[in-house]
Amino acid sequence: MTEPKFIRGFSKLSRFQKVQWLIEALNLDQSTADFLKCFELSDHELQSVIDDLSENQLSNFHLPFSVAPNFLVNGQFLAFPLVTEESSVVAALAKAAGFWAGRGGFHAKVIGTEKKGQLHFNWNGTPENLTRLFPQLKEQLLGEVASLTENMAKRGGGITLIELKHLPEVLPNYYQLDVAFETCDAMGANFINSCLEQFGRTLKSWARQNEAFHDEERHVEIIMAILSNYAPNSRVKVWVECPVSELETDRHQARIFADKFVQAVHIARRDVSRAVTHNKGIFNGIDALAIATGNDFRAIEAGAHAYASRKGVYSGLSYAELSGGQFCFSLEIPLAVGVVGGVTSIHPLAKVAMKILGEPSAKELMTYLAVAGLASNWSAVKALVTTGIQQGHMKMHLSNILSSFQLSGEQKQAARLYFQDREVSFSEVQKYLSEHA
Amino acid sequence: MTEPKFIRGFSKLSRFQKVQWLIEALNLDQSTADFLKCFELSDHELQSVIDDLSENQLSNFHLPFSVAPNFLVNGQFLAFPLVTEESSVVAALAKAAGFWAGRGGFHAKVIGTEKKGQLHFNWNGTPENLTRLFPQLKEQLLGEVASLTENMAKRGGGITLIELKHLPEVLPNYYQLDVAFETCDAMGANFINSCLEQFGRTLKSWARQNEAFHDEERHVEIIMAILSNYAPNSRVKVWVECPVSELETDRHQARIFADKFVQAVHIARRDVSRAVTHNKGIFNGIDALAIATGNDFRAIEAGAHAYASRKGVYSGLSYAELSGGQFCFSLEIPLAVGVVGGVTSIHPLAKVAMKILGEPSAKELMTYLAVAGLASNWSAVKALVTTGIQQGHMKMHLSNILSSFQLSGEQKQAARLYFQDREVSFSEVQKYLSEHA
Repeated sequence: MTEPKFIRGFSKLSRFQKVQWLIEALNLDQSTADFLKCFELSDHELQSVIDDLSENQLSNFHLPFSVAPNFLVNGQFLAFPLVTEESSVVAALAKAAGFWAGRGGFHAKVIGTEKKGQLHFNWNGTPENLTRLFPQLKEQLLGEVASLTENMAKRGGGITLIELKHLPEVLPNYYQLDVAFETCDAMGANFINSCLEQFGRTLKSWARQNEAFHDEERHVEIIMAILSNYAPNSRVKVWVECPVSELETDRHQARIFADKFVQAVHIARRDVSRAVTHNKGIFNGIDALAIATGNDFRAIEAGAHAYASRKGVYSGLSYAELSGGQFCFSLEIPLAVGVVGGVTSIHPLAKVAMKILGEPSAKELMTYLAVAGLASNWSAVKALVTTGIQQGHMKMHLSNILSSFQLSGEQKQAARLYFQDREVSFSEVQKYLSEHA
Repeated sequence: MTEPKFIRGFSKLSRFQKVQWLIEALNLDQSTADFLKCFELSDHELQSVIDDLSENQLSNFHLPFSVAPNFLVNGQFLAFPLVTEESSVVAALAKAAGFWAGRGGFHAKVIGTEKKGQLHFNWNGTPENLTRLFPQLKEQLLGEVASLTENMAKRGGGITLIELKHLPEVLPNYYQLDVAFETCDAMGANFINSCLEQFGRTLKSWARQNEAFHDEERHVEIIMAILSNYAPNSRVKVWVECPVSELETDRHQARIFADKFVQAVHIARRDVSRAVTHNKGIFNGIDALAIATGNDFRAIEAGAHAYASRKGVYSGLSYAELSGGQFCFSLEIPLAVGVVGGVTSIHPLAKVAMKILGEPSAKELMTYLAVAGLASNWSAVKALVTTGIQQGHMKMHLSNILSSFQLSGEQKQAARLYFQDREVSFSEVQKYLSEHA
């Protein structure tokens, strides 16, 4: 392989030129261009919508757009649109949905929707002076973002709190304006960032002109102004519950299963190695629904994983208990998402996903994301404490391996039969095929 | 909208039947079926490869498949294939790559590649008895997975450590076999899980037949056997460095910029609200490359976020310092990924992505992922401490909003001109268009 060279102005090339540069730079086959082309949409208008999402696009990356029916959430049936590259995730969600639909379904409660952002700045002065004048500053801050908050206010949102924090333990002259927002059905990133950047300008000019300050105090150095993806007060709780006896057809087995399930969830709350994979399983569900609805899964993950470590040790996010013969399994998680603006309103399949969900509000979508997380977690822990995860995985793993060979339907069927009670690995399948194909 | 009803056997329906069920259940327009169809590949073989990744597929979800050139990593130029729905991410990566290519590029060092998994079990006996017999057990454990480890051993991998842990603080009779693995170029999930499940069977039968145990001690209850996505010893360090004076053309500005940059990174290490968004920005880069190469971003995120909280407080993952006029910016992060098996070997565009990267080893891919993370973080923090994030965002935001209307190229151009120095919001754009279109 040839190594590419430095190129200036790559972003200004046409898509065709970008692909050609890549082919020449890497000494790839010319057929690569056609191959990339076959993943494009024939409808140019639709293709340009996908293109406009990002930069330097060469083609489209396809992930399966799936659906899991039978989600009963607060008494209403829903089908969840899901996008994931991981086998078994959609099947696991559908299985969990079907199981709990017959046992009262998923219950959900939104605990809050507060979003946060901070203006970070340095100020070399007497802290008490700033604290004393803060009410005056606050008024000016709110006044100068009025044009930005006007529309949000009409929808019932806006800025709900501004706190001044002096944090000399971080940096000698370091302060924050810690600001809380209500952004209604929007994720609100642009709104929050615009307000915070305006706060920066207002704060600087307010200090410069303030006669109560001596010379040095009139200078504020803005470090940065930015929303936070840590939104512990934008939180939802979801849970399932039923009598232990309804968990399995056999009463004795039901009790054993329930005990083991509760133990497994408890271990994830106490052991970091287990907590990580346990929570990863929760995000298998959440992210699949987040991607389908055009939400930013990195923001969701970062906020919720930090929440998982809020007590000083990284812990499992879900909780299970047995109480008086009743089994309860719950998840409380911060989720800051939007349903207007952003990719949700632009991506053609995210729009279909929102239709499939019945055009939910931001609060409803929070609920559904948490339900997807709990459902995914339920199926994973259930498999772990009963048959083990490999039985199902290996079947999918075999399918994946067989897909990487050019096989007829009959040959695939024969291979599946052969590996029914044998260890599956890439090399074993390769060996089998070289002997039988 | 109509609410869907409970449906049994949904997964057994054909794709056509699934879509029809959805249309009827939700009272959607019949054109939805055609719309979903236009996202499918005309090449049936390729389409079936995408389908086989998951279950209950209705169509394909398209994300832009992009490329960022000019990544100089350990002296070698690379183009990074990237998949993200978030505007500015690819542009930010390309910008960082170009900037650092002229200043020595990215340096990278793999610190370790150890992966872990645990067998979780309950055992009601004298802990010292188990500890004493552990060498005997270990021999039997390794013997009974020999057929599984044989192939991995040929490639230089296998089981590197088995520890017995008694953890009564978690559950009264709770133990772990904490196992370390080397999985070479594979992610190794199936290998690790197969070994651990076999350990469970071996442990049970070993205890049952052990004459050194009294009756009660002969019973081992396996809770679960599963790999951990927490792999702090599968870690890579990447960094960029240059004289402060080379950060900007103006020497005074360079110093101010460097100071602010270091302060911003320091704040993210000490303030949770900032750490979350700071790390989210790192994952913007990592996940875009992970998705393009068919790697599981949930596993990467969970492991690295837990690592970010290992000292008891959730912190920023990157580090910046000024020392003797030299600026250094680094990221040390756990990454457990594979390049053989899994989606990487199956997804047709993941295969193209691997070609673009020059068919890297697992260690090289770890390096590139971390580089993508640091590059993304560099551009985000740079924007934050200079122009602010909204300037670039708003340009992209406007593009996105304009995409949601049916506009000609000329109309879009006029709108861009109009909003050059005006606040961008969906309602403002709508207002402008209603007045000007």
